[in-house]
Amino acid sequence: MGERADVVVVGAGLSGLCAARKLRAQGASVIVVEARDRVGGRTLTQQIGSAAFDLGAQWIGPDQRRVHALVDELGLQTAPTFTDGKKVLEVAGKVSTYKRSIASMSVPNLIQLTGVLSYVNRVRKRVSPSSPMSAEGASELDGETLETWRSRIVKSAKITGVIDATVRTIFGAEARDLSALYFLMYINAGGGMLNLTEAKGGAQQDWIVGGAQALSLALAKDLGDSVVLGTPVRRILQGREGVDAVSDNGTISGRYAVVAIPPTLAGRIEYEPSVSVGRDQLTQRFSMGAAVKVIVTYEHAFWREAGFSGEVVSSDGPLSVVYDGTSHDDTQPALVGFVSGSQARQWSTQPMADRQRRITGALARYFGDAANSFSDYEELDWGMEAWSRGGPAAALPPGVLTNSFAHLRKPEGRIHWAGTETATEWIGYMEGAIQAGERAADEIQRRL
Amino acid sequence: MGERADVVVVGAGLSGLCAARKLRAQGASVIVVEARDRVGGRTLTQQIGSAAFDLGAQWIGPDQRRVHALVDELGLQTAPTFTDGKKVLEVAGKVSTYKRSIASMSVPNLIQLTGVLSYVNRVRKRVSPSSPMSAEGASELDGETLETWRSRIVKSAKITGVIDATVRTIFGAEARDLSALYFLMYINAGGGMLNLTEAKGGAQQDWIVGGAQALSLALAKDLGDSVVLGTPVRRILQGREGVDAVSDNGTISGRYAVVAIPPTLAGRIEYEPSVSVGRDQLTQRFSMGAAVKVIVTYEHAFWREAGFSGEVVSSDGPLSVVYDGTSHDDTQPALVGFVSGSQARQWSTQPMADRQRRITGALARYFGDAANSFSDYEELDWGMEAWSRGGPAAALPPGVLTNSFAHLRKPEGRIHWAGTETATEWIGYMEGAIQAGERAADEIQRRL
Repeated sequence: MGERADVVVVGAGLSGLCAARKLRAQGASVIVVEARDRVGGRTLTQQIGSAAFDLGAQWIGPDQRRVHALVDELGLQTAPTFTDGKKVLEVAGKVSTYKRSIASMSVPNLIQLTGVLSYVNRVRKRVSPSSPMSAEGASELDGETLETWRSRIVKSAKITGVIDATVRTIFGAEARDLSALYFLMYINAGGGMLNLTEAKGGAQQDWIVGGAQALSLALAKDLGDSVVLGTPVRRILQGREGVDAVSDNGTISGRYAVVAIPPTLAGRIEYEPSVSVGRDQLTQRFSMGAAVKVIVTYEHAFWREAGFSGEVVSSDGPLSVVYDGTSHDDTQPALVGFVSGSQARQWSTQPMADRQRRITGALARYFGDAANSFSDYEELDWGMEAWSRGGPAAALPPGVLTNSFAHLRKPEGRIHWAGTETATEWIGYMEGAIQAGERAADEIQRRL
Repeated sequence: MGERADVVVVGAGLSGLCAARKLRAQGASVIVVEARDRVGGRTLTQQIGSAAFDLGAQWIGPDQRRVHALVDELGLQTAPTFTDGKKVLEVAGKVSTYKRSIASMSVPNLIQLTGVLSYVNRVRKRVSPSSPMSAEGASELDGETLETWRSRIVKSAKITGVIDATVRTIFGAEARDLSALYFLMYINAGGGMLNLTEAKGGAQQDWIVGGAQALSLALAKDLGDSVVLGTPVRRILQGREGVDAVSDNGTISGRYAVVAIPPTLAGRIEYEPSVSVGRDQLTQRFSMGAAVKVIVTYEHAFWREAGFSGEVVSSDGPLSVVYDGTSHDDTQPALVGFVSGSQARQWSTQPMADRQRRITGALARYFGDAANSFSDYEELDWGMEAWSRGGPAAALPPGVLTNSFAHLRKPEGRIHWAGTETATEWIGYMEGAIQAGERAADEIQRRL
């Protein structure tokens, strides 16, 4: 080691790689240092049965222009998520099916749900991800949990179940874990709650054939030797002239650094001199959600044959959401879902046989007994990943935006911050990862 | 290095040292490894003017039996906090004085405050620190912030100001930062809110002559060469036979480990194999309060001469609380106070001259212009302390007790947890640190 470049990028996830790419395109030299022995961060693609499946981030929405541009540029293809047929809703032990984007409900419930979604949509539009504290009512909204806020606007137990399951899926956290203001900012960054939750027309509309990790693999290939794997950065020193990123394998020096990892992991790096109190307080409270992605493959897409699309929303779990994950050529049928939030936090303490039984049992409730006759069962508990510590993204409890929002993107000397949590568009998604990386690159470019 | 003992204790604060002492007394060999170049953790005593002052934890209450026993055993003395005279209350720009423990208020306010305190006292008694989730209404209480809970039971702006200033002082955090349930559990562990806030009869009744760090210094002296300073533990490996604590200076091995540091710092250590998802999720969300302790010395105790005790509670800040800190022989007059919570998080970004002016200006509002003519001004921002990252203690936002409480004290294999945050009596105080350390020692003793 003992290498040197203009910029040291810590983290070879999508955000760090996009930062590196943009810096290099502008003429700067970069070294990307990655703790894992692979690139891609919260994307990870694996062969299961006869196809490649994503054990991490997978889908992209129609208005996520950066990730679509990257897919095109890298010569990758997308495929639409299968959505033809009945959807399933499970709340408090009752399974029902529906056809459109809103569950078939009693008329009073339907009216209430429409009203709630419309109200949430109106309020979220006020909360700009670049200055959430200037929103009308921001202080009150950051003073309470999403749970108490939601309990004032939703009275039906069924709608509460739907909303909480949705929150659980989006954040890997419970409504009580979240600041109401953070929730509104986050969904606003993605164009609203329906936009985040829908397959057709929303964030789960398409997926990348060959898997989403292909984005990072291709970016890393272009960067060549500049990407150093298996090298956790433990300490970042900075002086008047530059930065030193100290790893177990030696030190990499640069004029500036981009730290493109989840906030809680950024907080585990030692900084000399120390980052500001406000920055450390922010990372102390910016915790990762808990999410386990589950992929179950089958010989036949039996749910399609029975008229189901494969989409499920469940308040009961263990899966909070399910989608059809069949390969684009239909040769490898699969269902994919997430265990999210409180259930995910304890998931890995259960024996694997129990976990499998609980997952396939849930799928059987929705789609019939054929769900029990699976080919492969794969799961990834992102909480067990030392270099992610949860998923899909980090979220804030009440009080942090009030106090520490300024420290989210503010550089600490020569250290700039990337990672999807620092995005202002599609926070928590691949799109946000790209935006954040490119923004950090632009910040540094102006200083080089 | 390459040393070996029965037990490796990480952290030479009061908790770790008490764990080591108890283990050794029971015949086990111990090595205590400390990141700082001193012992005492969140206690730190410094000479200012002609006396020793505590820049960290200082006071002890009459019913804190463990710390009193330790003081006696080590041959140390206590002195009473000076409380004779008028107390000062500042809420929303209005300064008033009062004599008793409850501020002189309008009759309706007094009635409301009495009612609120009595209600809080009734509810907190339900919340056992050893099983908070089994309390009546626990789930709801952990689903909301203390701010929203408080806003339902307190209507007067003045009483809200008093309560929020008190919360800020106790936790170094705002009411919105805290789970209502965590707040109730915490104050219950110390015998109630008044017990935590009062000088006479409460947690600030006495202080240790020569400073509270003397406890740790004496304990460390007894442990001799077994205390290793300046050695941050970065990684803890465990196998079938024992543990290896890997530091920058080498590895210390033992059969068991006690990690006796704040939860957020425990979360920054790398564990191989990894701790459970639940444990990591807990430490991701268990953030330190923000507190700056300020000591201002004077030639004369002018406030005493004007009939003030020196006690202040202020909702306006920058000081949330002030006490008389004059040396026990009255030769070095001093006022001591805390900047707490949101104001503390940004405190160190201000130039020192502004900070001094704001502090002495506040003291002048309470006690007159003589406050501006000080001898020495000292402050310690505990958020800047790399091996504390805040103070006085850590606290939990909503949702964590619901999910992760079991991981607070549950050993991870051969690793046991101490530190005042893991106490069940006087959580966050020196008393809690001792209790937690001794409890961890007992746990290991049973396994040796």
